[in-house]
Amino acid sequence: MIKVGIVGGTGYTGVELLRLLARHADVKLHAVTSRKESGMKVAEMFPSLRGRVGIAFSTPEESDLSQCDVVFFATPNGIAMQQARELLAAGVKVIDLAADFRIKDVAEWEKWYGMTHASPELIAKAVYGLPEANREQIRAAQLIANPGCYPTAVQLGYLPLIEAGVVDAGHLIADCKSGVSGAGRKAEVSSLFAEAGDNFKAYGVNGHRHLPEIGQGLALAAGKPVGLTFVPHLTPLIRGIHATLYATLTKDVDVQALFEQRYVNEPFVDVMPAGSHPETRSVRGANVCRIAVHRPQGGNTVVVLSVIDNLVKGAAGQAVQNMNLLFGLPEDQGLDIVPLLP
Amino acid sequence: MIKVGIVGGTGYTGVELLRLLARHADVKLHAVTSRKESGMKVAEMFPSLRGRVGIAFSTPEESDLSQCDVVFFATPNGIAMQQARELLAAGVKVIDLAADFRIKDVAEWEKWYGMTHASPELIAKAVYGLPEANREQIRAAQLIANPGCYPTAVQLGYLPLIEAGVVDAGHLIADCKSGVSGAGRKAEVSSLFAEAGDNFKAYGVNGHRHLPEIGQGLALAAGKPVGLTFVPHLTPLIRGIHATLYATLTKDVDVQALFEQRYVNEPFVDVMPAGSHPETRSVRGANVCRIAVHRPQGGNTVVVLSVIDNLVKGAAGQAVQNMNLLFGLPEDQGLDIVPLLP
Amino acid sequence: MIKVGIVGGTGYTGVELLRLLARHADVKLHAVTSRKESGMKVAEMFPSLRGRVGIAFSTPEESDLSQCDVVFFATPNGIAMQQARELLAAGVKVIDLAADFRIKDVAEWEKWYGMTHASPELIAKAVYGLPEANREQIRAAQLIANPGCYPTAVQLGYLPLIEAGVVDAGHLIADCKSGVSGAGRKAEVSSLFAEAGDNFKAYGVNGHRHLPEIGQGLALAAGKPVGLTFVPHLTPLIRGIHATLYATLTKDVDVQALFEQRYVNEPFVDVMPAGSHPETRSVRGANVCRIAVHRPQGGNTVVVLSVIDNLVKGAAGQAVQNMNLLFGLPEDQGLDIVPLLP
Amino acid sequence: MIKVGIVGGTGYTGVELLRLLARHADVKLHAVTSRKESGMKVAEMFPSLRGRVGIAFSTPEESDLSQCDVVFFATPNGIAMQQARELLAAGVKVIDLAADFRIKDVAEWEKWYGMTHASPELIAKAVYGLPEANREQIRAAQLIANPGCYPTAVQLGYLPLIEAGVVDAGHLIADCKSGVSGAGRKAEVSSLFAEAGDNFKAYGVNGHRHLPEIGQGLALAAGKPVGLTFVPHLTPLIRGIHATLYATLTKDVDVQALFEQRYVNEPFVDVMPAGSHPETRSVRGANVCRIAVHRPQGGNTVVVLSVIDNLVKGAAGQAVQNMNLLFGLPEDQGLDIVPLLP
Repeated sequence: MIKVGIVGGTGYTGVELLRLLARHADVKLHAVTSRKESGMKVAEMFPSLRGRVGIAFSTPEESDLSQCDVVFFATPNGIAMQQARELLAAGVKVIDLAADFRIKDVAEWEKWYGMTHASPELIAKAVYGLPEANREQIRAAQLIANPGCYPTAVQLGYLPLIEAGVVDAGHLIADCKSGVSGAGRKAEVSSLFAEAGDNFKAYGVNGHRHLPEIGQGLALAAGKPVGLTFVPHLTPLIRGIHATLYATLTKDVDVQALFEQRYVNEPFVDVMPAGSHPETRSVRGANVCRIAVHRPQGGNTVVVLSVIDNLVKGAAGQAVQNMNLLFGLPEDQGLDIVPLLP
Repeated sequence: MIKVGIVGGTGYTGVELLRLLARHADVKLHAVTSRKESGMKVAEMFPSLRGRVGIAFSTPEESDLSQCDVVFFATPNGIAMQQARELLAAGVKVIDLAADFRIKDVAEWEKWYGMTHASPELIAKAVYGLPEANREQIRAAQLIANPGCYPTAVQLGYLPLIEAGVVDAGHLIADCKSGVSGAGRKAEVSSLFAEAGDNFKAYGVNGHRHLPEIGQGLALAAGKPVGLTFVPHLTPLIRGIHATLYATLTKDVDVQALFEQRYVNEPFVDVMPAGSHPETRSVRGANVCRIAVHRPQGGNTVVVLSVIDNLVKGAAGQAVQNMNLLFGLPEDQGLDIVPLLP
Repeated sequence: MIKVGIVGGTGYTGVELLRLLARHADVKLHAVTSRKESGMKVAEMFPSLRGRVGIAFSTPEESDLSQCDVVFFATPNGIAMQQARELLAAGVKVIDLAADFRIKDVAEWEKWYGMTHASPELIAKAVYGLPEANREQIRAAQLIANPGCYPTAVQLGYLPLIEAGVVDAGHLIADCKSGVSGAGRKAEVSSLFAEAGDNFKAYGVNGHRHLPEIGQGLALAAGKPVGLTFVPHLTPLIRGIHATLYATLTKDVDVQALFEQRYVNEPFVDVMPAGSHPETRSVRGANVCRIAVHRPQGGNTVVVLSVIDNLVKGAAGQAVQNMNLLFGLPEDQGLDIVPLLP
Repeated sequence: MIKVGIVGGTGYTGVELLRLLARHADVKLHAVTSRKESGMKVAEMFPSLRGRVGIAFSTPEESDLSQCDVVFFATPNGIAMQQARELLAAGVKVIDLAADFRIKDVAEWEKWYGMTHASPELIAKAVYGLPEANREQIRAAQLIANPGCYPTAVQLGYLPLIEAGVVDAGHLIADCKSGVSGAGRKAEVSSLFAEAGDNFKAYGVNGHRHLPEIGQGLALAAGKPVGLTFVPHLTPLIRGIHATLYATLTKDVDVQALFEQRYVNEPFVDVMPAGSHPETRSVRGANVCRIAVHRPQGGNTVVVLSVIDNLVKGAAGQAVQNMNLLFGLPEDQGLDIVPLLP
């Protein structure tokens, strides 16, 4: 049994990790830390876990996370970079669901995240945890930078086109829509039901932190920098991301075949039949990215539709997938969930 | 023109007052105070008011509210009781949308609201602003305690039965459902879209502050104390209250006729035809209470269905209705709004 | 492996059965019938089942359901009563998720459902599939009348009080709220997003088909007829029922202990700690009924809060639970699902 | 008083017209036709209109619409083209809220709408009712083709750029999101609450009927054909359209100033300050288009955000605006509505 610790279990990625790990056959939950809620039963805060998670939140001090085989950081940005070094030194594997180790260029990271990086030496060591791009490096890693939600949906949607070199990588447009759980379980006016409900808006048009993360991944695939316009929107869903991706074809290829071949062996990417329109609810609660690809009116603009559940393939599910890879388990262990529809 | 001040214009009752007053023919907006947001244009916080409300939030000090003809308190509980005395002394009329002056029994108020009342002497002076019960006293008042949202829906639903003495007033059950805007524009986890969306729950079953307010109003109508079980629920609406009221008939009366007669002259209470089921959206944005009354299977249990928009007839609309009465204006001035459906 | 057939797989109870059975270790799906959609892949209609359910809808004729070990009817009312006889004669077990066999009094059934019963002789043979009331009879049955959604939530909430004889069974009030999926996947104006969204209403106050079903179950527990007022409401949830149940205590009992003892061995009923308010989302997607019991202000009115997912414990999940009992499997086989929150 | 008839008053554009006309000072409602519902009070179907609209639906025969000064067609596509000729001959002005007269190229219209046009000779006579583009022609018209919802939001967002010739009109991308009321009040599975709620999807990526309408309007402004990729999405709003528009600048202009100047005299277009993100709720219920314009990272991609209420500026409100122009009334008569927020 893998001994698991979770730092910061009171947010949405935390409770989602717990939902998945509670049914994972090879996992034993060692500790869920929360300085603020220590002593409270986890299932008191999240009644969905009654009968599934018996332990209480504990302080970091009493938790002795160095005994764990793996520790997940389901924390705000800036925490893992302070605590990972000690755990790594103790031989613990670390999966950070926040952004601390995602950007290789430290200066770039510091610009977008507005803080000084506490462990720049760990960034090079960290492996970006997108299995569809990096599976072998992940297997061998000790420190995983679990991708952001938008970056997962966008990269999986663009990778076949970029890797094949069939689109103009200098002019990509990613119009993305996210459910409100993407903003986390923080008390903020803009995330209130009476603010975000029955409402739709763009945000961060002039710059969102996921822009450099996506750009880095696509540049790696392209072998050169890419030009990307990324516009995120808030939509009244609880869960779900829908990325609508635009690119201009530079070669006349069978895009449907291209996508099907690229993902033929991927257990968690579903290329839908030509003409499909994936719905966010078709992946609700499941670790799947469903993709459809279109060429409207047969023109040279290709439109990729890519949907994920932001809390699963966009966060906790992908983290468990990475854990499975780190420990040599079947990649879908604990992730065999049928989406909840309706 | 009536010179109007609003204390606390950053919450939902504040913006709703502004929506209504922006189109009120007899009103001139003097000041909207907010210590925290002073200097910010009101329409910057609430873009729905662009082109309608030109002024900025101001501090109480710079606002000189004593120049107003009427001041609305759209503040949390406990503010009006501290500031009303001075305004009243200056001859200003005051309408408190919070609870400070609603309960006549000071000890009871202090128990439920958990604070010492700062102006107990004003409580007797205050008139409870439910026009359908108190119209003449309101006309003559200087200080109005604007009713709570649940109390408005519940009292309007029970009054015909209680006043006529045809039900057992010792065993009333009010099962009420509220939209999330009723919790205000405060940053609280429980009001987040991802918490309150696609979810339904009761709350405060063992005691909610609106219980003594409803009990006081119904006791006045009954001429004796009443026995009331009040269970509020949170439902994923932005606006709307639906009260489902149960009582046992002690006389065999034509309840439909009873309701129609009671409200025949009321401009803002709509008794629907027998057999109707009022929908909350049928009053969305409007200062109306729609009511239907049933006797399931012809038995002696009477079921009253009463719906309001919690921000209009349950708050800001009723406050404007009270203002109209205070100043001798047509009662529906500025309230001639057709509900938004769908 | 149990060979399973589903009649009518295009509605919400059908797709929910498929979600559950797709992961059930002892089940082999033989056929999903739909005359209208025959030939279409099930996963084409419900993309959430891609990779999980490989078969296509088939006509009843080509399906040869008599080869099945068990057939579920996920059909509108009035279908199972026409087709069950032949299957039963062939030795097939039948679980009807509709209402055809729920009411023992045929005349009563015909009155509420507005049709002549096609197989009245089967009604006596049918066992009402509420395991918490009827577990042993279910094990021995061949024909199961799977309970309605409201009846499940209401009966589980009232049973401890009624069986113990501690409330006035002549005056029960069940104020119930349902998500919109309860109306099924039928194209009806009243179930449109723009009608049912951001809206709350009661319906069927003068009589709903679940009233006689609940009355029958409670009368059985009470050993005498009960008096019940049942008011259903439509609330903008996709899934979920919240029953708020009122009764007058006739004895001063520890209601918390009463509920805990009644359900101590029940795997799918969760009695929450005193003072709790169960949320519908805490059971989303799972075969659980969570219950809390209150005595507001310590009076003699007892308030029971009972929540289920209408498609799981209120339909397909309970049907699988019944199947497990029919075939001597662990009762929770295939039902080991952690609710989806948020 | 203008004598008004409405053909097809049972849909969302019909009830929205009634909401607006009920408060319009210069309008007298002559008839609302519905063959199916004739005899039923309009306010029985739409309780929001109780006390506002007294008449009943009537058959076309008994309505004698030729007595009207203006007739609105709030019907499905294909009705107005059959009935308009007779009304026009009788001197009645006609405003078609459907698509019958929007496309000048009959063959193109017939291809996209799948029917033979019944009155091709009227198409040339019809004026496209986008006042911000065609105000003077509208004043002089007898037959108005009221624009579609998407076309309104998209054209208002692109016009300043196209007219000024500062973008590459050959490569425009319009990523649009609509609330569910845009699909109308038709009983269709895909519009059910349990289908469209908590879900997001694209649709019609390979071709949507609004594409040629938008293309025609933009080509007119550009003086040459444009290249447009138009991807509509369904989002769980009741009302609202959010168009996110992308174009490549070919000149380095001050886009903020360009938009402000273009719309400086437009009463119903609000250019927001630089850096803004308009929300759909900021126009809920009002005849306004709010627009913000961005150049992310100062690059040459311009992003325009344009929001409307699809039932108001996208349908019934614009129709009333056109009526005001047709009859020489103040353009905002009856449209002086403050948006409903929250």
